[in-house]
Amino acid sequence: MKSKRPVPGHQVLLQGFLEGSVRGLARAISVVENERDGFQDLLHTVMTSGPQTKRVGFTGPPGAGKSSIVAAVATAYRGLEEHLGIVAVDPTSPYSGGALLGDRIRMNDIATDPGIFIRSMATRGSLGGLATATKEVVDLMDSFGFDRVLVETVGVGQTELEVTAAADTVVVVLVPESGDAIQAMKAGLMEVADIFVVNKADRPGAPRLVKELRQALHLRSGRALRDIPAHHGVDLGKAMKLERVSDASEQEGEEWAVPVLTTNALTGEGVDKLLETVEAHRRWLVESGELGVLRRARSGIRIRDVVDREMRRVAWNSERVNGLLTQGVEEIALGRGTPYSAADNILRALLRQRA
Amino acid sequence: MKSKRPVPGHQVLLQGFLEGSVRGLARAISVVENERDGFQDLLHTVMTSGPQTKRVGFTGPPGAGKSSIVAAVATAYRGLEEHLGIVAVDPTSPYSGGALLGDRIRMNDIATDPGIFIRSMATRGSLGGLATATKEVVDLMDSFGFDRVLVETVGVGQTELEVTAAADTVVVVLVPESGDAIQAMKAGLMEVADIFVVNKADRPGAPRLVKELRQALHLRSGRALRDIPAHHGVDLGKAMKLERVSDASEQEGEEWAVPVLTTNALTGEGVDKLLETVEAHRRWLVESGELGVLRRARSGIRIRDVVDREMRRVAWNSERVNGLLTQGVEEIALGRGTPYSAADNILRALLRQRA
Repeated sequence: MKSKRPVPGHQVLLQGFLEGSVRGLARAISVVENERDGFQDLLHTVMTSGPQTKRVGFTGPPGAGKSSIVAAVATAYRGLEEHLGIVAVDPTSPYSGGALLGDRIRMNDIATDPGIFIRSMATRGSLGGLATATKEVVDLMDSFGFDRVLVETVGVGQTELEVTAAADTVVVVLVPESGDAIQAMKAGLMEVADIFVVNKADRPGAPRLVKELRQALHLRSGRALRDIPAHHGVDLGKAMKLERVSDASEQEGEEWAVPVLTTNALTGEGVDKLLETVEAHRRWLVESGELGVLRRARSGIRIRDVVDREMRRVAWNSERVNGLLTQGVEEIALGRGTPYSAADNILRALLRQRA
Repeated sequence: MKSKRPVPGHQVLLQGFLEGSVRGLARAISVVENERDGFQDLLHTVMTSGPQTKRVGFTGPPGAGKSSIVAAVATAYRGLEEHLGIVAVDPTSPYSGGALLGDRIRMNDIATDPGIFIRSMATRGSLGGLATATKEVVDLMDSFGFDRVLVETVGVGQTELEVTAAADTVVVVLVPESGDAIQAMKAGLMEVADIFVVNKADRPGAPRLVKELRQALHLRSGRALRDIPAHHGVDLGKAMKLERVSDASEQEGEEWAVPVLTTNALTGEGVDKLLETVEAHRRWLVESGELGVLRRARSGIRIRDVVDREMRRVAWNSERVNGLLTQGVEEIALGRGTPYSAADNILRALLRQRA
C-alpha cells in the first residue's frame, strides 16, 4: 500500500494492463476480486495515473429489463465506436433466479463484441465487503481507459444501491409490473435516480406509472449530494463539507430535473432518447460543477471502505487479537465476562486510543 | 464499556429490567436499538448475571407462513405456561410487502397475551450493522429471564441468516410454492437448518418437497460448527479451535439427523410434533456437548461484531481521522493520491501497528 513500492508479483499483469491488454485487465480484476497479495498496491498504481471515464449505472427491481436496456444502450454506443466496460452485479437470489437468467441470456448478444468487456459479479454471501470489491472492479475498468463503463445492479438492497452510487449517472429502470412510484420510493430508488426509464412501455399500466413517477419527483428536488447515506452514524457529506457546494448550485438554479422516459428495449424504441438524456445529464454534471462534488464524495466513500476493510483485516489476522478472542470466549463461558469486556481488551490492543 | 462502571443514566431502567419489569425491558431494547450512550455498559451489566435461555429461530422465504408457525408454537408454549420473548425481523422490502403484512396480521392473535413480549425490528438500510443490534436485542431478551426466546427472520439475505444463527435450534419453514430443495440449498438454508418444516402440507407439491429435502439432507451431515461462515476471510471456527470438538462428536456417532416435518399452521396440524422435535434437538444439544460449542461460537461472533462496530465508531468519530479523510479527498482530486494512500495515512493514525 506504499505508493512507491512496486506491485509484487504483478509486474507482467500491470504492464499488460497499462498497455491496454484485455487479458491484463481480466487478470487484474481476478487479483482484486480475490484480494490476492498486493491487490491494493495494484489499484493504487493504476488509479494514480489512470483516466476518469464516464460511468453510467442501471438499477431497478428484478425483471424490469435492465439487462435488455444495457444491451440496447451498449449496442448504440458501439455504433458510435465507443469502447465499453460493463460490470453486471448478480444477486443470485434463489427466489428470483429465473428472471435474472432470462435477462442474462439477452446480454449474450453483445458478449462476443471485442469492443465490449463484460464482467459479472455475484453479491451473495457478502456482508457489504463485496460492495467494496465491486467498486474496485469499476475503478479498474475506469483506469483501463474504456470510453464508458456501464454498471448494472438489481436495486433490491443496500449493497446494490451502494454500487450504483459509484456511477456518475444513474438510470433507474422500472416496468408497470414492478409496482408503483411509492414502492420505488420505499426501495430508495428515488434517491439514486438521475433518469427514470419505464421499460416495456407498451404494456397497460405504463402511462400511469410514468404519471405517478412525475408527480412523486415533483415533490422532491434532484439527486443532491446531501443524500450521501449516513454510514454507521457518520454523515460523510457533512464531514467533507460537501453541503455548501450542493446548496450553491441550487441557488444558481442549476438543479437537475429528473426526467421520466419510456422505452421498449426489445424493439429499441426510446433508446436514442435515453442516450441523449444521459449526455444531457453529463453536460449538467460538468457545467454545474456537480461532477467534481460527486467524485469527491465517491473518493471519500472509497477511502472509508478501504479503511473499514483494512481495520478488520488487521484485527482478525493478528495472532494477539485471536488470542484475546479465545480468552474472551473462555471468560464468557465461565460467566466472568461478556462480549463487551472481551471487545474492550481487543480494542485496547488494536487502537492507538479509544474514543 | 468498563466492567465496573455504573450504567450512566440508565439506573432506573436497569433496576426495572433486573426486577423483571416488561417496561424496563422495552426501554432497554430502545436504548440498545438506538445505540444511546451507555448501551454497551447496559448490555455488559445484564449479560454478566443474566440467565441463558432456550432460543429457537424460525426462518424461510417470504410467504412460507413463518409468522403463523411462530404464532401456533407460541400459543402451544403458553399452554405449558412458558413466558416468551419474540423477536421478529422484518425485511420491509417493497417488493414483498404484501406477503409480509399478511403474516404480521396473524401475529396479532398472540400480541395481546401478557405472557408474550413481541418486538419487531426492520433490517432495511443497514449494512450488517443491524444484524449486530438484533443479536443484542435477542441477548437482552435472553438475559431478561424468559423461558424461551423465539426469533423469526426471512431467510433471504446474509443479515437474516446471521441473526438466525443466534438461535440454538433453527427451524426452516418452506412451502411447496417457495421452490424446491435445490433452491433452499442455494439460499444457504440447508446450512442453518436443525429442523425443516414443510408448511401448508395439504397443498399439492408438499410430498414431493418433503422427499426432495430428505434426499438432499441425506447427502450432507448435520449442522456442524465447521460451517460458521468465514467473516472477511477470517475463519472464526478455526481461530477458536472449534473444529476438533465438532469432529469428536461425529466420531462418537452423535450427529443430529435433520428431520423434515409437515405442518398446517392454520389448523394446528403438526405443531405438537414440531414442539417435540425442538425438545429432542435441545436434549441432543445438551447431551452431545454441542450447546457449549454453539455458545462459544456465538460468543466469538458477538465479540467480533462489537470490535468491528467499535473500530468504525472510533475511526469515524475522530476529528483527526476526518481531517485526514478531507485531506485524502483533496489529494485524490488533485491526482496526487488514491483511496489506498489516503487510507494508509488514516490507518497509521488509528492502529497501534499495521499487519
